[in-house]
Amino acid sequence: MIPPLMDFSRLCVHTVTTKPWGIEETVRRYSAAGVKGITIWREAFLDKGPAATGQLVRDHGLKVVSLCRGGFFAASSANRRAKAIDDNRHCIDEAAALGAPLVVLVCGAEPGQALGDSRKQISDGIAAVLPHAAAAKVRLAVEPLHPMYAGDRCAINTLGQAREICGRLNSPWIGVAVDVYHTWWDDRLRDEIGACGRGGWLFAFHVSDWRLPTVDLLEDRGLMGEGCIPIREIREWVEGAGFTGFIEVEIFSRRLWAGDQAQYLESIKDAYLSRV
Amino acid sequence: MIPPLMDFSRLCVHTVTTKPWGIEETVRRYSAAGVKGITIWREAFLDKGPAATGQLVRDHGLKVVSLCRGGFFAASSANRRAKAIDDNRHCIDEAAALGAPLVVLVCGAEPGQALGDSRKQISDGIAAVLPHAAAAKVRLAVEPLHPMYAGDRCAINTLGQAREICGRLNSPWIGVAVDVYHTWWDDRLRDEIGACGRGGWLFAFHVSDWRLPTVDLLEDRGLMGEGCIPIREIREWVEGAGFTGFIEVEIFSRRLWAGDQAQYLESIKDAYLSRV
Repeated sequence: MIPPLMDFSRLCVHTVTTKPWGIEETVRRYSAAGVKGITIWREAFLDKGPAATGQLVRDHGLKVVSLCRGGFFAASSANRRAKAIDDNRHCIDEAAALGAPLVVLVCGAEPGQALGDSRKQISDGIAAVLPHAAAAKVRLAVEPLHPMYAGDRCAINTLGQAREICGRLNSPWIGVAVDVYHTWWDDRLRDEIGACGRGGWLFAFHVSDWRLPTVDLLEDRGLMGEGCIPIREIREWVEGAGFTGFIEVEIFSRRLWAGDQAQYLESIKDAYLSRV
Repeated sequence: MIPPLMDFSRLCVHTVTTKPWGIEETVRRYSAAGVKGITIWREAFLDKGPAATGQLVRDHGLKVVSLCRGGFFAASSANRRAKAIDDNRHCIDEAAALGAPLVVLVCGAEPGQALGDSRKQISDGIAAVLPHAAAAKVRLAVEPLHPMYAGDRCAINTLGQAREICGRLNSPWIGVAVDVYHTWWDDRLRDEIGACGRGGWLFAFHVSDWRLPTVDLLEDRGLMGEGCIPIREIREWVEGAGFTGFIEVEIFSRRLWAGDQAQYLESIKDAYLSRV
């Protein structure tokens, strides 16, 4: 097994992880805590807009790692699919204004529509926005979500499916985000990470943990070490496949949001060194 | 798409589906409603024992389709693995006493243990009890459970994994149970059902639905038609692969258990004809 991480030079935290903080407090606290990267959720720049938010982040010595999130291309009507493509072009523009080199795509399913149809529409939607992404020099990462979201939030449920989209679209601007929470159960994960590495598609790596029991499908993720995911082993696979980027802590947890966020940020740092 | 089912000759209901009823009421009500098959959960014969329960069922003109459930072979200590093998031999004896031709195996994961290790132990555990199953003329079905259970309840999370176990063990006494709730999201499902058909491994078919939103990981399944699973399409695949057995309604739902069970049983019959 690879050794633990020894410093915070690759630590990135998602704004949603410490959701109770506003963007100014988030940036100030992350910077003071020695966090080096930040992934911005779109709601975090509702007040200031993307450009001023990006400036705020850089003024505090933080690097914007990615913008969460675009996607949601699947829709049963052509009008709604066209609107999703427009929304994603807009999201790419926001990423450029923010200074984010990457947009994470959550590839929503359309309830009531066959998963195969949604998957096709997702691939077509990404193809439609890729020229815009290339022009803006913003990369796009397909993030497969856990199969428990296949009914609504995401029709791309394995890294293999995400990798197939990358192979089909064949562009340096499309890749994958590997999130241990969504993918750890998959017996093909190691091989698929290797294949994504060979394709040059490993754009992002997200960590959290799977609690036992998990009491909510959306907002009960664990801090690294609170659950059963072999996080360090998966980091070994990802790094063995050539990934050297930020390690992003993305945790949705009503339980953790309810506590003191400054203390929680310290726990994240401890868990990052001891469990990632 | 294949036509709807026209009668209840293949309808089986799991005792747990109408959990508020005791076994005597369950059997009486199912029989009166025209249900033809019953899958018995082990807690249902705690009072009478398996032999008397089997007699009760037959006296009401019902056929025992399967016994739920054995399994849980994965364990970090050799002692606990040996105990699990003993428990499963006992479960096979209970099935024989009950008159159940099949035991469904829930292949529990061991929390904190690598999934690959659990999967190996599951395969070894089944291999150890297969001679006992063959002697008792009781078949065993590996039921892959949804990946959201990979941390504790089940380390076999795709039909492909279950099929690999069958291929490795190579015995007429081992096969699979395909449950739409656990497998519907998988883009390999159709192919894997075909492969299981060719192997002679399609032993059981379970139906329910995936609700949007799902608010509990264990006890929020839907009645067929209440969710997003393409149940009839999956039945078409299963039957196209040669399956002609009972169609088993297995629903865990606090919401549905809280209502009038006789009315619920009628809804099950309606949903069986209109949505399966």
